[in-house]
Amino acid sequence: MPTLKEIAEITGYSMATVSRVINRQGHVSEKTKLHIEKAAKEIGFTRENNNRLKINSGTPSIGVVINRISSPFYSLLAQSVEEVGREHNRHLMLCSSGYDANEEQKAIDFLLSHGCRHIVLHSKALSDSALEGICRQHSDVVLIGRHVEAVQERCVWLDSQAGTYQATQHLINLGHRRIGFINLAFDCDDKHNRLAGYINAMKDNGLMVEPDWVQNADWVEVGGRNAARKLLSQGLPVTALLAFNDVYAASALREFQSRGVQIPSQLSIIGFDDVMPQCYFSPALTTLKYPIAVMARKAALLSLTGNYAQFPQGQCYYPTLIHRESVAPYQHEHCV
Amino acid sequence: MPTLKEIAEITGYSMATVSRVINRQGHVSEKTKLHIEKAAKEIGFTRENNNRLKINSGTPSIGVVINRISSPFYSLLAQSVEEVGREHNRHLMLCSSGYDANEEQKAIDFLLSHGCRHIVLHSKALSDSALEGICRQHSDVVLIGRHVEAVQERCVWLDSQAGTYQATQHLINLGHRRIGFINLAFDCDDKHNRLAGYINAMKDNGLMVEPDWVQNADWVEVGGRNAARKLLSQGLPVTALLAFNDVYAASALREFQSRGVQIPSQLSIIGFDDVMPQCYFSPALTTLKYPIAVMARKAALLSLTGNYAQFPQGQCYYPTLIHRESVAPYQHEHCV
Repeated sequence: MPTLKEIAEITGYSMATVSRVINRQGHVSEKTKLHIEKAAKEIGFTRENNNRLKINSGTPSIGVVINRISSPFYSLLAQSVEEVGREHNRHLMLCSSGYDANEEQKAIDFLLSHGCRHIVLHSKALSDSALEGICRQHSDVVLIGRHVEAVQERCVWLDSQAGTYQATQHLINLGHRRIGFINLAFDCDDKHNRLAGYINAMKDNGLMVEPDWVQNADWVEVGGRNAARKLLSQGLPVTALLAFNDVYAASALREFQSRGVQIPSQLSIIGFDDVMPQCYFSPALTTLKYPIAVMARKAALLSLTGNYAQFPQGQCYYPTLIHRESVAPYQHEHCV
Repeated sequence: MPTLKEIAEITGYSMATVSRVINRQGHVSEKTKLHIEKAAKEIGFTRENNNRLKINSGTPSIGVVINRISSPFYSLLAQSVEEVGREHNRHLMLCSSGYDANEEQKAIDFLLSHGCRHIVLHSKALSDSALEGICRQHSDVVLIGRHVEAVQERCVWLDSQAGTYQATQHLINLGHRRIGFINLAFDCDDKHNRLAGYINAMKDNGLMVEPDWVQNADWVEVGGRNAARKLLSQGLPVTALLAFNDVYAASALREFQSRGVQIPSQLSIIGFDDVMPQCYFSPALTTLKYPIAVMARKAALLSLTGNYAQFPQGQCYYPTLIHRESVAPYQHEHCV
């Protein structure tokens, strides 16, 4: 079996340099990298037969790459992967990537170089083609929350668009016509899909969307609060509001309440995710449930079994509208 | 340098068996284990000069052991450790242990066997002497949220008792005399310390604590809700309440509100932790801040630098009482 040592001998580079290239860690010039990779290929060396990986394979693990540990959505995702790992005597290796393409790639490389081949990858920053390349090269990487058509048998994702379409239609059915949307500022598939569901439902009902009704919000609670303030400064031009996630919904809701807007009699709000205990919402939040715990279990099992033939079209989930207390039928202003 | 192979040759066991014993993974009979460990000791083999660890040390990591990923307190702890790791070009390896001694030990073994020597350990189930043994054997393990006197230079902990004493005194200063406590059901140092702070403050003010005023709550929101129901079924014998953590506070608060109890005019509530965005509380929660993010940073740096001489007494932090909207002065019943 070809070894790193052989590559070092053929190329004349030190073992350390060869190791850096093969394990994709530390700085090596592009020229050196190409030289070493070419030599490795010629003698039939692959990352899979790297001794280091073999050595590590004695302590089985499962890896997960997420945006941010301290977000309830991602910590639930990671916990489900860990649970599946535990059921299969595997420990969790976790990397967060801050929605940065470079960090996402580094996280994957780190896991692989630690012999962690089974990876549930939540990537929002790497391109479709980069993800396709990763999946083709590493047979146990599964994508969650992302649909990459070329490798869709490896994908477990949510049809966000169907969710926001359904939620918007529900509000329209209740008589609302002026409906707003607090979207994510960060550019990714979810942002566009969730907006599209809302826009399409409005269009299909012959309703216009005024530009002022859509607010982009930065991460976490400040984003939701600022979006609410913006809408209030415009005289609150809407009677109902969809939020990209429940944090935006909760922080906007508090801001509206503190300014005397009654929820839901004066303003209906629908969130997205449903990953928080309900004791944190008052009124209880009507929201689109993202079944992330179930999906993460599926993704982890898919990676461990490698049974990709079972779902050649991938596994698409749909959000469910959970009816609670933050939505009311439209009331004429004078009735409020 | 002694190797696993030598141990295998001396003892006559296979490499696989020797590896399982040395890396503390997989099942091996007690007799075999003792035989191999004895041989390893005789030829001067230690885990630290295990080649596997050496090989892994090329991809630096930092480890963290926590109770549960999907709890905001622990995800914040893990995120801080990850941030420090990132600043030192180290990736995070995370294990959760479910407050189980066996799982805590397995988590530590997993990290060590992956060449992850720098470990921030949040242990509530292992005994003081077990933790002392781990610290003595592994020079880069640091304890967080736990004070083990024999190795206190390795400890970064919170004086919980000082916190609940201060919070109880604050309520007494506001005229409250009948003060309750929603405690954790799970038996650990935090449970006893937080209760002691409350009891001592009551005693020091010449106040009795009726047994009915202290409720033990199971994990997460159901625990807080049930404690509130129990107190309500007793006719709500208190005018103020301390909660072991903010989840209990939030879920008890919602239950009281849903039963028509005005917070804070009829009942004051103080939580513990302050790890959640404030948009999730209405009224905004008065609480004891557990500076876990700062403490986790300190613990991670302490493990990486090994500078234990700097704080021979360890690093003790104090919770801060954050005044918000869930506490009011005591009002006579007829004023409510």
